[in-house]
Amino acid sequence: MNEFDFIGRLRERATANEPASSTLITHHSSLLTSIGDDAAVIQQLTGRNTVITTDLLVEDIDFERATLRPRLLGHRALAVSLSDIAAMGARPRWALLSIGLPAEVWDSTFVDEFYEGFFSLAQRYDVQLVGGDVSRTPEKIVIDSIVLGECGAEREILRRGARRGDQLFVTGALGGSAAGLRLLKRGARLEVRDDADQDAHSVEQLLLRHLRPEPRVGWGLVLGEERLASAMIDISDGLSSDLHHLCAESETGALIDAARLPIDPFVAALCGRRALDPLLLALHGGEDFELLFTVPAARLASLPKTVDGVSITQIGEITSETGKICVAEKDRVWELEPKGFDHFPRTASAERKG
Amino acid sequence: MNEFDFIGRLRERATANEPASSTLITHHSSLLTSIGDDAAVIQQLTGRNTVITTDLLVEDIDFERATLRPRLLGHRALAVSLSDIAAMGARPRWALLSIGLPAEVWDSTFVDEFYEGFFSLAQRYDVQLVGGDVSRTPEKIVIDSIVLGECGAEREILRRGARRGDQLFVTGALGGSAAGLRLLKRGARLEVRDDADQDAHSVEQLLLRHLRPEPRVGWGLVLGEERLASAMIDISDGLSSDLHHLCAESETGALIDAARLPIDPFVAALCGRRALDPLLLALHGGEDFELLFTVPAARLASLPKTVDGVSITQIGEITSETGKICVAEKDRVWELEPKGFDHFPRTASAERKG
Repeated sequence: MNEFDFIGRLRERATANEPASSTLITHHSSLLTSIGDDAAVIQQLTGRNTVITTDLLVEDIDFERATLRPRLLGHRALAVSLSDIAAMGARPRWALLSIGLPAEVWDSTFVDEFYEGFFSLAQRYDVQLVGGDVSRTPEKIVIDSIVLGECGAEREILRRGARRGDQLFVTGALGGSAAGLRLLKRGARLEVRDDADQDAHSVEQLLLRHLRPEPRVGWGLVLGEERLASAMIDISDGLSSDLHHLCAESETGALIDAARLPIDPFVAALCGRRALDPLLLALHGGEDFELLFTVPAARLASLPKTVDGVSITQIGEITSETGKICVAEKDRVWELEPKGFDHFPRTASAERKG
Repeated sequence: MNEFDFIGRLRERATANEPASSTLITHHSSLLTSIGDDAAVIQQLTGRNTVITTDLLVEDIDFERATLRPRLLGHRALAVSLSDIAAMGARPRWALLSIGLPAEVWDSTFVDEFYEGFFSLAQRYDVQLVGGDVSRTPEKIVIDSIVLGECGAEREILRRGARRGDQLFVTGALGGSAAGLRLLKRGARLEVRDDADQDAHSVEQLLLRHLRPEPRVGWGLVLGEERLASAMIDISDGLSSDLHHLCAESETGALIDAARLPIDPFVAALCGRRALDPLLLALHGGEDFELLFTVPAARLASLPKTVDGVSITQIGEITSETGKICVAEKDRVWELEPKGFDHFPRTASAERKG
């Protein structure tokens, strides 16, 4: 069972959880989504929707204490959840944080620096911290970031709305975060820089793409409020995996034009000398936190060119065969497997058991 | 800085987090609470309120894998959050779960058993799992349980509403969970039982009080919907600590009548032979998950005797001196210090640093 099998099973289980026969109070709101979108959507009486997401960050799995300073971790904890809210076409409003810390971290400047990073991003998007929990942990830092958002009635954008012929878009650029992670693993650090050195500048930009992701909150709002996108997901696991999720939910396929993929310019600048393959990084590299969305032909003319200075690129279109995702590259077309991030990959488990 | 100093600082910080000057979309809901109640309350346009809470459970800090079977952990993860929602006078509706597991636990029957316990309790209270997150962890299990509830306009019960002269009540019985924890630490296990042995039966009941807490959802609903309570908190850290929290928020004191405290009957049955002090367990023992609430004189006549078979006990009353909590025991009155649970106690930190 991998992470996504698990979510599928849980979804069946949660749906089978029938309401009790008698309830004390009439229900005033109802659920619009099942498990497995970027966030859950709860429909309010007024027709406004509440959108809620949760993201768990575990030290040594999702981040390294040595390379991710507390301030950047605070930024990241909120950023990943804001990205989920953006991927629903909703506006982020409230946040809660559950934090587990070893005693020696509690007694350090960690907490203050962490919240500086968190509040700095929260303020930019007018998100208010409303609650949370604190626990001690034996060794590792764990953070659970919860964000609630709002959107208008029928303005939420689910993964399941893509239709054949819809154009496929992505915000910003791809592959930068994965390149940054690889550079980190090879020993590159944010501290080391030489302004005159173009190479050092590229390295720093890629490290920042990984260490300080920028959620596409503005794009999420515009695509939702203007009903421009038919389906949307954020690229957290990697384009190949997240496009598979979107296509599976929409019961469609997709065709990507490799030449159109917006490769991060700093990846392009470094790739030759650092043995980084830009196309593979763009297709499978996780944690870009860009938005991947589909637009029906009739809505294309209404798409803005940029929002908050971030542009979008049309990278392909939706096709009819469920789950079949192809890449057109020069004179050949090949099928794209989902090779993005999975916390519990099937093969690793099988190998370990064998 | 202990856990509660931290929450106080965070509250100041969150309040200082002023809204950005320009926002894309008009806000349709507003926040009714600041950080530091059992849950956050978000006021909807319709006058309905959304209530949200999060609880982090960390292996070897909040539970032991050896003594808390997966099914009981699933129950517990939801129960602690339902208790927070009950303490707001709200109805639980939706849940999210963030789960971090070591790979070998993922590959075991843990996940299925955990969700059996979770869904079994969820079904009883018609709570629906709507989302969550999964991560791998290096070693320890971590669970973050998030529950959203609803209540009518001005039906939420905060910690800050108690007034001098209000009567102080508690649901159920006290000290059982702490006694169960002590028995666990001495090696008692749920498996070992002899039906004919009264002592073994008492031990089992106390272990269950600790291992399978029952949130007082029905009482929370009644007290909220009927506006019977002026302030409420759930007893998670221990009566002494939680009463201090309630009094601090309400800017009052309290006087407890020791003779009225509803000591868990199984604690009473065992205390002599097992060197357990029933009064200390009732005052400082944490994780009873009973509701502690205050009722104005004018509402006393409307209080039901039991809800869902759970009775309540009047244990004292609210007094005027902020933060001064006294216990009347036989012919003396003594001041009660908060000696309940704290994840980061001041003294331990100071000792470690010294």
